[in-house]
Amino acid sequence: MATENDLALLTDLYQLTMAQAYFQNRRMESATFSLFIRAYPANRGYFVSAGLEDVLEFLEGFSFDSAAIDYLHSLKLFADDFLDFMKSLRFTGEVWAIPEGRLFFKDEPIVEVTAPIIEAQIVETFIINQINLQSLIATKAARCVHAAGGRAVVDFSLRRTHGIDAGMKVARSSYLTGFAGTSNVRAGRRYGMPVVGTMAHSFVSSHDHEIDAFRSFVKSFPNNSILLIDTYDTIAGARNAVQVGKEMAARGERLQGVRIDSGDLATLAREVRKIFDAADMKEVKIIGSGGLDEFDLAEFSDANVPYNSYGVGTKMGVSGDAPWTDCAYKLVEYGERSVLKLSTGKVSLPGRKQVFRLTAAGNQLQKDVIGLREESIEGTEPLLQQIMQDGRITRPLPTLEASRETFREEFSRLPNPTKAIRDPVLYPVELSAGLSELRQELERQVRRSS
Amino acid sequence: MATENDLALLTDLYQLTMAQAYFQNRRMESATFSLFIRAYPANRGYFVSAGLEDVLEFLEGFSFDSAAIDYLHSLKLFADDFLDFMKSLRFTGEVWAIPEGRLFFKDEPIVEVTAPIIEAQIVETFIINQINLQSLIATKAARCVHAAGGRAVVDFSLRRTHGIDAGMKVARSSYLTGFAGTSNVRAGRRYGMPVVGTMAHSFVSSHDHEIDAFRSFVKSFPNNSILLIDTYDTIAGARNAVQVGKEMAARGERLQGVRIDSGDLATLAREVRKIFDAADMKEVKIIGSGGLDEFDLAEFSDANVPYNSYGVGTKMGVSGDAPWTDCAYKLVEYGERSVLKLSTGKVSLPGRKQVFRLTAAGNQLQKDVIGLREESIEGTEPLLQQIMQDGRITRPLPTLEASRETFREEFSRLPNPTKAIRDPVLYPVELSAGLSELRQELERQVRRSS
Repeated sequence: MATENDLALLTDLYQLTMAQAYFQNRRMESATFSLFIRAYPANRGYFVSAGLEDVLEFLEGFSFDSAAIDYLHSLKLFADDFLDFMKSLRFTGEVWAIPEGRLFFKDEPIVEVTAPIIEAQIVETFIINQINLQSLIATKAARCVHAAGGRAVVDFSLRRTHGIDAGMKVARSSYLTGFAGTSNVRAGRRYGMPVVGTMAHSFVSSHDHEIDAFRSFVKSFPNNSILLIDTYDTIAGARNAVQVGKEMAARGERLQGVRIDSGDLATLAREVRKIFDAADMKEVKIIGSGGLDEFDLAEFSDANVPYNSYGVGTKMGVSGDAPWTDCAYKLVEYGERSVLKLSTGKVSLPGRKQVFRLTAAGNQLQKDVIGLREESIEGTEPLLQQIMQDGRITRPLPTLEASRETFREEFSRLPNPTKAIRDPVLYPVELSAGLSELRQELERQVRRSS
Repeated sequence: MATENDLALLTDLYQLTMAQAYFQNRRMESATFSLFIRAYPANRGYFVSAGLEDVLEFLEGFSFDSAAIDYLHSLKLFADDFLDFMKSLRFTGEVWAIPEGRLFFKDEPIVEVTAPIIEAQIVETFIINQINLQSLIATKAARCVHAAGGRAVVDFSLRRTHGIDAGMKVARSSYLTGFAGTSNVRAGRRYGMPVVGTMAHSFVSSHDHEIDAFRSFVKSFPNNSILLIDTYDTIAGARNAVQVGKEMAARGERLQGVRIDSGDLATLAREVRKIFDAADMKEVKIIGSGGLDEFDLAEFSDANVPYNSYGVGTKMGVSGDAPWTDCAYKLVEYGERSVLKLSTGKVSLPGRKQVFRLTAAGNQLQKDVIGLREESIEGTEPLLQQIMQDGRITRPLPTLEASRETFREEFSRLPNPTKAIRDPVLYPVELSAGLSELRQELERQVRRSS
């Protein structure tokens, strides 16, 4: 099993070889790196900020223990004086960031780190790893919640998430954007979020008859049973559930709902709804699951398919249609000098920056302006906040519930065409005059002198 | 940061509600669950077994600590006698599995767990989580190695893998199938595998001139520098690298190689190769990276693009074109009774099983037969081995190096049409007469009685 006391080693080797080169060449000036996403994956028109809390904890606790140093020594790549220096290396820099739960758009800096270059460089891998995953999933989950049109959506993805850490972060990121809960019990404990779930097919198939399984289950959970009715035949399963529901009612108990996990989910929901309605059991809820994503949910919403809620699994938990973002952590300032990278197709925005958000009449979001940190643009809200100074968190982090409310509130102000789950209208993002000028000047310099 | 002492809680809530129902209804008989993959993702014709070591460690250490029990109590779902029972719950069952590094095919059981039903059920989520991820990545990585046609491939994916655990498991799974190393330093330490990497664009852009950055870097790494030459202009970068390489040669040092990370990678490699060859520096290697996957590598191999090795990142690390497998862990036996599930489109194979592998003349793999555990088929090799009994590992696990060799040897025996990275020819897998009969009999029973 993984231990977690050597997270500083969770970095790319080149971060350490570059660190040695900086150290030996006495290049220890302050550097600023900017994390941003270069492009929207298909059908995306916004992103949701997530992952910052893990980044800040990592930075506060950053250090190489002696076993880590011993390992680095064993690689025969590093000089003794450099490894001595690494023993006492801590993260002493400052961090500005867009808070969790807020919307951001392509090219906008989400996190900017300013620190002596070795420190700011070495933490790159972890920062990208966490922000990429969590913002990716928060965005995918936001799309599901939006598509569900007010019906509850819960996270069933743990078994197919990419490992343990992803399972935890997916539960948290989806709750951040409005999921009602998760099946992941450990996430329920860790994040204080609701946990959900009742039975699997194996419970039914371990009994000789489906109705025996239903009777057995409701005996243990007389007031919160959701019976899974598709193990053999969904319609027959619904009739068995009606029978058990009536037995429960006679005992003063109440069947909460049924779940359909396979087959033609739209048609089955309608038939099952009719069966319960005809039995005068209108309060029994129908939960849909089984390979669902936001595209299915939107279709069901449009067609008024009578699901009360959804369990969403794999395709949300791995962001199936777009399992990564094109995010980068780029040097934008070294010492007193703003820096630009010009690799083909990969132009970065130089300097320490700020994102200014403009709200229209009626409180709808109108446009963003990416500018220089020291600029101020009247009537706009600056999004990046300083959250770390001298390697310490400078303001109490919001609770997960507070960040969830931040998201809910801001998302309600995003224009609907930008929320569309297919071919969204892009939200306007401009560069400030100051940033445009700096960039043009640097482009000229770079092309002259490289 | 995550602690890892409560991994037993890394399960779906329904595993625990079902456990309570089994407990309260005194259904504690032995059950067998079978883990298999139902279908090939696009362009896949085989899978590579990976993840077993983590599963076995998890099962050996499985228990709920008192804080976990307290948390479960707080949910107000569980009875006191059940939670008392859970306090002393350990995994006491047996496990049969296809060893890591071996090939398997759709519908074949990879892992079969036999234990009292509560134990066998509750561990489902973790087992799927790890086997799905690691077999998925091992398969993707095997495709990359095959496509590279003998050129070395290394793992650069850590920043885009889905979290910490995935970063570790991707490094391990890709090494298992022939990757030469990883950039992930923590994986190098944990798994004893080679670590690789030298410099990033930021190192270049932090200097006033590219050639200053190169000179500075090789001073620290006179014998193992790979210079990244695409920060500004790849051709100009190659000329700067030639200059620095000649300065190194004059000092008795040697430039190891250059890396190209953007632009038209095929064209640039040819031009850069010409530049070094013309400078009489034929030994300088060219490494390609930047969004590569097995499809690019195959194209470069076919066209003899002069790369010596590749860094492969995101698309391998998240299995970009297929970020999950359709794997399931199904109840196949309860007590003395074999079990079948018939949900639409999801038919399982009942009973405890074995996979029998047949080898043709010339040592090529010929076909597999899925049969019952107690069957034996002459001239075939049974793939599933018993690796756990009474909750304890029964045989020393192979080292990662040994599993890597297992993969290398067996993969060389897989027919080439099945290895094709597009539209592979499916490998023949049959059901034994015994298994076919059992399945038909159960289908008849189920349809009569459900």
